[in-house]
Amino acid sequence: MQNTQYHFSKLAGKLKSSMIRELLKYANVPGAISFGGGTPDPETFPRHELAQIASEIIEKEYKYTLQYSVTEGDPELVRQILVLLKRVYGIDGLSSENILITVGSQQALELVGKILLDPGDYVLVGDPEYLGALSAFRMRDPQFLVVKFDDDGPDINMVEQRIKDLEESGQIRYLKFIYVVSNFQNPSGITTSFEKRRALVEIAQKYDVLIVEDDPYGVLRFEGDFVPSMMKIGGTERVILLNTFSKILCPGLRIGIIVADKSIIRKAVLAKQGSDLCSPSLTMRLAARYLERYDVLEQIKTAVTLYKQKKDAMVKALEENFGDIPGARWTNPQGGLFIWFTLPEEYNTMEMFEFAEQNKVFYIPGEAFRPHDEPSSSMRMSFCLPSIEGIYEGVRRLRDAFEKYRASKGL
Amino acid sequence: MQNTQYHFSKLAGKLKSSMIRELLKYANVPGAISFGGGTPDPETFPRHELAQIASEIIEKEYKYTLQYSVTEGDPELVRQILVLLKRVYGIDGLSSENILITVGSQQALELVGKILLDPGDYVLVGDPEYLGALSAFRMRDPQFLVVKFDDDGPDINMVEQRIKDLEESGQIRYLKFIYVVSNFQNPSGITTSFEKRRALVEIAQKYDVLIVEDDPYGVLRFEGDFVPSMMKIGGTERVILLNTFSKILCPGLRIGIIVADKSIIRKAVLAKQGSDLCSPSLTMRLAARYLERYDVLEQIKTAVTLYKQKKDAMVKALEENFGDIPGARWTNPQGGLFIWFTLPEEYNTMEMFEFAEQNKVFYIPGEAFRPHDEPSSSMRMSFCLPSIEGIYEGVRRLRDAFEKYRASKGL
Repeated sequence: MQNTQYHFSKLAGKLKSSMIRELLKYANVPGAISFGGGTPDPETFPRHELAQIASEIIEKEYKYTLQYSVTEGDPELVRQILVLLKRVYGIDGLSSENILITVGSQQALELVGKILLDPGDYVLVGDPEYLGALSAFRMRDPQFLVVKFDDDGPDINMVEQRIKDLEESGQIRYLKFIYVVSNFQNPSGITTSFEKRRALVEIAQKYDVLIVEDDPYGVLRFEGDFVPSMMKIGGTERVILLNTFSKILCPGLRIGIIVADKSIIRKAVLAKQGSDLCSPSLTMRLAARYLERYDVLEQIKTAVTLYKQKKDAMVKALEENFGDIPGARWTNPQGGLFIWFTLPEEYNTMEMFEFAEQNKVFYIPGEAFRPHDEPSSSMRMSFCLPSIEGIYEGVRRLRDAFEKYRASKGL
Repeated sequence: MQNTQYHFSKLAGKLKSSMIRELLKYANVPGAISFGGGTPDPETFPRHELAQIASEIIEKEYKYTLQYSVTEGDPELVRQILVLLKRVYGIDGLSSENILITVGSQQALELVGKILLDPGDYVLVGDPEYLGALSAFRMRDPQFLVVKFDDDGPDINMVEQRIKDLEESGQIRYLKFIYVVSNFQNPSGITTSFEKRRALVEIAQKYDVLIVEDDPYGVLRFEGDFVPSMMKIGGTERVILLNTFSKILCPGLRIGIIVADKSIIRKAVLAKQGSDLCSPSLTMRLAARYLERYDVLEQIKTAVTLYKQKKDAMVKALEENFGDIPGARWTNPQGGLFIWFTLPEEYNTMEMFEFAEQNKVFYIPGEAFRPHDEPSSSMRMSFCLPSIEGIYEGVRRLRDAFEKYRASKGL
């Protein structure tokens, strides 16, 4: 039979390829400088240590590493995670029943969606927002309540207003959670301040909703003061904390974590059972033995120092190349991998993309991170992969692309 | 806040722990003999080869193995899979666009559910049926059309009747696919005959539905003739083929495969993107390099020979211990890991479980594999893990448990 038309589900009809994925196809042309991808620099991964441990645990622990694991994840890794939660967040008193290991934080997001969201339920998200979270939640067909992100986190008045509106229309019980990437948000690089974190927890308590705090980048702080997590402020009763080893160790192991109240973890375990039975034993045990033998928080310092130099270079390059454009502005993050660069509002970074492409410089247009796909004058610029020289050269190319785009618009 | 009642989704409300998981908790008591788990024997895994390759690919290919992969999966592994599809099934002419690598076949099942099933849609399944498939499909809240499994596969008259009923009630467009584990089905050990495979493909063509052919056990054939796959008969237009490396190599890598029409794979890739972004690069590349250097079909022969001896022992033990019970019967599979043992219908293997537990012998009651959880006089007995002596001893204990159960029922 030729040209079969399959009867896909409604969900399948709504799925679309991520813009990032599509745009990054262009980024591999020779001579290109890409500020697009948010992947860490592979030279920072502890490959010698991991190679040695991998060989050892396959030889000696093959009855675990090559066999099915329990759905909850490797107990040895869970133990190491409990130690890290104490060291990184000062969170104490948790047990293995508060932890579920997932296939990357993307699966953590999807499982949270599965256990909390029915079609039509509400989730409060930022504008801009992490694209992976939006696509995970969309699997459950929710409605997004969107609030603006200020330089110190979500606009709290807007959060309260959105929730009050729901309460007045009798829909408040369908609001399931507030989602926030608390440190160095992807895409904006913005960190939610302590005051705003406390305010969010109070709002969550007042209206009996959960907070999903996603913190993949917190360990990549290169300046400024540590800000306590919302989970530390609100406890597991009110906050679900997601994390990942993709930035602290390496992404190839695909290890994410859900930290939550035991009853939430139990549900998430059942959802994971139906989704993939269990994560790979080998990658979990590899991370566990690495954490046992090496101090991952020490090990990551080299990468963090490098990222700071690159961030400083990008901020300097933006000042040099765009300092004269009235209304152009950029975030100056204290950690993480991303700068959010905003042009005056009459510009559209999606339109500008073709000029950047001609100049062999790549970024992700802000539109990709808007929950309702509206046009955007912002772009996400990742500083982690190019060299420092590449960053200066790339921003110069970007200014040139901007000139060509401006001329084409007659502005 | 104490005793928070969370507002879980309706899906979360329906999730329940798998009976297998619960029952197997008992199987670890000292001296127990378990016919419960369907996990392969770890001594059959090629651990020395895998240890050596793992170390090498982390050292030399760290830019791939420790980094994010593309959602479709490692291109090197896809290439090896195309070679295997030709060798194992005689399937030719496929390209990388027909393949998606998943986290075990459980994720393959869940992705198939996501892209094809809306709540209320129909899926045709067997009685008994593979539990993992039922739980994956249940994530999408479908209705199961159930057909009896004969000794040579699904009851074809019943398949046609169920479909005709749907057609008459105007519901046929909501039937999305027929699911069949074609070789040595879990739990029954039954292989669907060539005639029935052809009949199923014809029915699928006639009524324009898909077939989802799941074949984790086909490579574990220890006697009898190879039966062509439904995908070979019906092509990718009509058949989605699922497979896994869990039985052929080892489960700890969690590598499953979807083979399908390109348009189906494209949708499944998008669904995977939202579900976990990508599988771990390390485990995929490890499998790829193993397959490149070693002949996995040769390597597995030792395990298959061992499984045949164990299957023969279990059949002999059943004959010796239950040959005198009128109405007791068991399948004699030509491969795979399971025998389906059925007591006379007045018995209930869930009720009998406590007597077996007292005797320290474990099996999975047939009820676990019935799509609508009805009581069952059958049980799934896995012969892959206990020793041959253990099998004889275990079946003797089972007979003793049966006697105690029979006495308790006054039969």
